[in-house]
Amino acid sequence: MDSINIKKLAEALNFSTSTISRAFRDNSDISAATKSLILEKAKELNYQPNHYASNLREQKSKTIAVIVPELANNYFSQAIHGIERVARENGYHILIYVTDDNYDKEVNFIRHLHNGRADGIIMSVSGEANDHNYLNKFGAKRLPLVFFDRIYEDIKTPRVITNDYNSSFLATEHLIEQGCKRIGYLVVNKTLSIGKTRMQGYIDALAKHNINFEEQLIVDCSNSYEENSTIIKDALTQLKPDGVFTSVERLAFATYYACYDLHLSIPDDLKVISFSSLEIAPLLNPSLTTITQPAAEIGEEAAKLLFKILDDNQDKNVFNEVILQSKIVVRNSTSDSPEKP
Amino acid sequence: MDSINIKKLAEALNFSTSTISRAFRDNSDISAATKSLILEKAKELNYQPNHYASNLREQKSKTIAVIVPELANNYFSQAIHGIERVARENGYHILIYVTDDNYDKEVNFIRHLHNGRADGIIMSVSGEANDHNYLNKFGAKRLPLVFFDRIYEDIKTPRVITNDYNSSFLATEHLIEQGCKRIGYLVVNKTLSIGKTRMQGYIDALAKHNINFEEQLIVDCSNSYEENSTIIKDALTQLKPDGVFTSVERLAFATYYACYDLHLSIPDDLKVISFSSLEIAPLLNPSLTTITQPAAEIGEEAAKLLFKILDDNQDKNVFNEVILQSKIVVRNSTSDSPEKP
Repeated sequence: MDSINIKKLAEALNFSTSTISRAFRDNSDISAATKSLILEKAKELNYQPNHYASNLREQKSKTIAVIVPELANNYFSQAIHGIERVARENGYHILIYVTDDNYDKEVNFIRHLHNGRADGIIMSVSGEANDHNYLNKFGAKRLPLVFFDRIYEDIKTPRVITNDYNSSFLATEHLIEQGCKRIGYLVVNKTLSIGKTRMQGYIDALAKHNINFEEQLIVDCSNSYEENSTIIKDALTQLKPDGVFTSVERLAFATYYACYDLHLSIPDDLKVISFSSLEIAPLLNPSLTTITQPAAEIGEEAAKLLFKILDDNQDKNVFNEVILQSKIVVRNSTSDSPEKP
Repeated sequence: MDSINIKKLAEALNFSTSTISRAFRDNSDISAATKSLILEKAKELNYQPNHYASNLREQKSKTIAVIVPELANNYFSQAIHGIERVARENGYHILIYVTDDNYDKEVNFIRHLHNGRADGIIMSVSGEANDHNYLNKFGAKRLPLVFFDRIYEDIKTPRVITNDYNSSFLATEHLIEQGCKRIGYLVVNKTLSIGKTRMQGYIDALAKHNINFEEQLIVDCSNSYEENSTIIKDALTQLKPDGVFTSVERLAFATYYACYDLHLSIPDDLKVISFSSLEIAPLLNPSLTTITQPAAEIGEEAAKLLFKILDDNQDKNVFNEVILQSKIVVRNSTSDSPEKP
């Protein structure tokens, strides 16, 4: 096939190139009938207007950037699906960027996006607790930004979160009700707001049930699988908890592996509950009790907040907060009687 | 902070705007010292050259688009990591597009990308077997494209695949050696090349061991979780296989759920082996025997093939094929003696 450009398309239709380009810009000078004629012919000839040129005029990339800390986490892949669904309904594409919990990558992505790559950003922040004032440096030019799940509390922008404090309180209480007296809390970055909120729920549940809070039972893990294996095995051996509450699913997996290696039985020797959206949690050995966040719905709500700014010109610098509810799904990893296979 | 533009940056440094823009284009007229001075000041003032404008000149978006059928699959998230690593080393970003195995989405993404969105595409094709001649319609203007894992055989472009035929042969043979005589093959789309190749390995292994091939034991599943649940339960009840080989991991999960519901024991009543890169396969009940593809390495090789075209001007229309080796990891789901917990 010969290469097609706007001139050839115009010739094929016997229109001027300016009529063609106005049709692509959806200019009201052009009738609906002419527009549909042009779009049909363009499709037939496989012609697409040049993206960069038309976006320079329109100042719109029709793109939402989604920044997540990791992909190998069921929560984020489900949230992305939710965002994508709403974006598509609004005629937008999504781009996905993965920070691997690395703060420098996050800063680079955000800077990069500000030169015309996207119309807005939906982000769950990296796990590292660095200076995030970089977001304020863009001033009025900052792109519309919506946080979900992991947020920077001090940045004035809309956010979608779940009732983490309450869920953590109930998760800890569930372990206590199942007979645990010495409960560890495993977290990746306890200084990040989400880690802190979840930890507070844990601490308050202990207090309510008159269990002493021991600082050492808060186990600060890392982003490395190997390091976590050592950290968790040491914690299980030295601190001898009878239950653990993990703030992210990969710490629950690491706990399972550690128990296999140490010949500890879950739930007899150690009960485990975790924040997780893992769809195969029932297939684990033993099946994992989870605090399940409504991940897809969180993504949808975040996208809706963003379109309120993009389409309805709502102020982008507001603390507009949507809070959704997680639920605890009880399975065998917190069972209080020996498991019957 | 006041908004910053090229003029203000030039004033702050007492350079001309043309010097600034030549520095950003990495023009050899500008000394390294001047360049670094300009880049430093730009960083300090949070200035980035306009993306669309500079890309119009450079004709480069410095972006690789990665198109995958799904994200909630460990194989693809690991492959994306591999691609991202190589892209970053080459100073490129990646964009991720998810087709959800939907052919129309794939076609739309590809068309969209051809108007300047990306410099090249790495794709694992959607599971649907439709006309993929649309890729040829771009003619010489087609973006450099590399396939990985799921490919369209007739499109002349580089690809990275694994030894699927051989792995499937060995997987089927493993089931036979563990005592299976009636082995089902579960596939999502048997007309797609990857499904066909894997099926042929299964058929040939049966033949080698003098086991009759029965067409009905090829179970064609769907993309819907609910439909698969019914399809698989019906197959297990009516065909009574003693082993199943699943071509993608979610069919293995669906088989586990079906066995739980039907009170069939894995591996006593049914042995299961699956293509899967699931990192928590050892944590399943029972642990899952897998054919594990070197997912991250596949992603890296695909990216390297693409950069051969982008940087070394290698012909983009070649059947350049890289074949990597998968390995079978034997676990309890194919154990030939009753499992000891």
